[in-house]
Amino acid sequence: MELWFTERQTPNLSIGCRIDKTLIHERTEYQDLTIIDTLQYGRMLVLDGCVMTTEKDEFVYHEMISHVPLATHPNPKKVLVVGGGDGGVIREALRHPSVEKAVLAEIDGAVIRRSQEFLPTIAAGLKDPRAVLAVGDGVKHVKEHRGEYDVIVCDSTDPIGPAVGLFSKEFFTDAREALTPDGLFVAQSESPFLHGELIARVMKDLAAVFPVARLYWAVIPTYPGAMWTFALGSKKHDPATDFRRVEFPTKYYSPEIHRAAFVLPPFAAALVR
Amino acid sequence: MELWFTERQTPNLSIGCRIDKTLIHERTEYQDLTIIDTLQYGRMLVLDGCVMTTEKDEFVYHEMISHVPLATHPNPKKVLVVGGGDGGVIREALRHPSVEKAVLAEIDGAVIRRSQEFLPTIAAGLKDPRAVLAVGDGVKHVKEHRGEYDVIVCDSTDPIGPAVGLFSKEFFTDAREALTPDGLFVAQSESPFLHGELIARVMKDLAAVFPVARLYWAVIPTYPGAMWTFALGSKKHDPATDFRRVEFPTKYYSPEIHRAAFVLPPFAAALVR
Repeated sequence: MELWFTERQTPNLSIGCRIDKTLIHERTEYQDLTIIDTLQYGRMLVLDGCVMTTEKDEFVYHEMISHVPLATHPNPKKVLVVGGGDGGVIREALRHPSVEKAVLAEIDGAVIRRSQEFLPTIAAGLKDPRAVLAVGDGVKHVKEHRGEYDVIVCDSTDPIGPAVGLFSKEFFTDAREALTPDGLFVAQSESPFLHGELIARVMKDLAAVFPVARLYWAVIPTYPGAMWTFALGSKKHDPATDFRRVEFPTKYYSPEIHRAAFVLPPFAAALVR
Repeated sequence: MELWFTERQTPNLSIGCRIDKTLIHERTEYQDLTIIDTLQYGRMLVLDGCVMTTEKDEFVYHEMISHVPLATHPNPKKVLVVGGGDGGVIREALRHPSVEKAVLAEIDGAVIRRSQEFLPTIAAGLKDPRAVLAVGDGVKHVKEHRGEYDVIVCDSTDPIGPAVGLFSKEFFTDAREALTPDGLFVAQSESPFLHGELIARVMKDLAAVFPVARLYWAVIPTYPGAMWTFALGSKKHDPATDFRRVEFPTKYYSPEIHRAAFVLPPFAAALVR
């Protein structure tokens, strides 16, 4: 007998992964949480039926959402991750030696606990003494901290359900206020193959809030549309050109990929104009 | 009732598309041929159960496999497409004004006929007077033409079944001999997320046959692993740096994307070393 997990990525599109074992399947305070062992992509975190991360391709997302803003800031010391309960962004952020404190504002403590239990390679950074767990509402956290963070990473679920507020102009404005004078904000912003309208709206709002707004991308095979974008707002430095070389080994990110990631194919560039 | 098409991309991974209508489903002389109307990606050509192309994302594959070698050659006049019965590569090749003749060596005439019937936007170029249909074995065609083509594009199915010979060192050698002195050969070469060993072997063989061998990539959501590579062998010009700007509008390709496509993430670059 074969067991398969199927995510209906849109009403008309699905991805299926053969399952070796279901490690946990529970209803948390906020969402349906499942961690399964898949034969293709290793262990996989699924929230409300959507693939969040897998052991085999998580490096793309976590490296690209982290190192692009962190290599752009000249000396990042304080980092905030909104969402990101699996710990992957914290792990990557803490590889930057200048970082003294990385705060995780994840609303669902169960995501953190279960990731630590079942996804130890991804959650590894949460054990670092510089990591601070602030379980609670990221929107509220951002509102309550002014001029504090050098980099804010919004590692959210899709813009439906609990994460909808994280894609609003109000949140981008609060994020700007929570940043230091040369701070950067980045949010995952879905696929131009499937979510062009969202990307266009997010980039318009970001450009109204930040002096510099840029879209960059990477390829993530388990995400709908696979071509995945990141929307970045910067108070000073242009992340497309003005960044440092990182000094540690990476699997997807490199300074050359950093630069190339801002080159948008014409059909995607058209969303940003 | 909902109808879905599911491709098992690997024994442990699948993609599913909801179907509006099945337009044709037949056994040709060589393979199982299906064209379906999907709600997500428009019309889709499926050979032996594998997605070959879809109306909504075909532009990525066809532009990238065509314009990278054609913009590298200083004055391409004669182009050979091996496989590619849907006509998409011919369509893109013929957009280069210097091209006088584009030969399609497709083994399965049914693919050409059914594409002309059901995928007219993709097959459009086949009506051009410069297009020459040479239905038959591409391996044989390449062997029988010496020093004739400026660009050879191998637009094949996966390296199993009828296309296995198109991934051999012998074929690469024959392709080199069929090229003019500054000719280029390019072949689709699968995904580094799923087919790393194949890519490593193809690039080793290409580098043994051609003075210049380069791997480049694009993102194709309906292909297994989504990050899709193209293996290019060149007799003279380095496609990564030495190319012309094309003068017509494109949706994925651009001179900037051309350059960026040769930037490999470290995990993929490791396959080529």
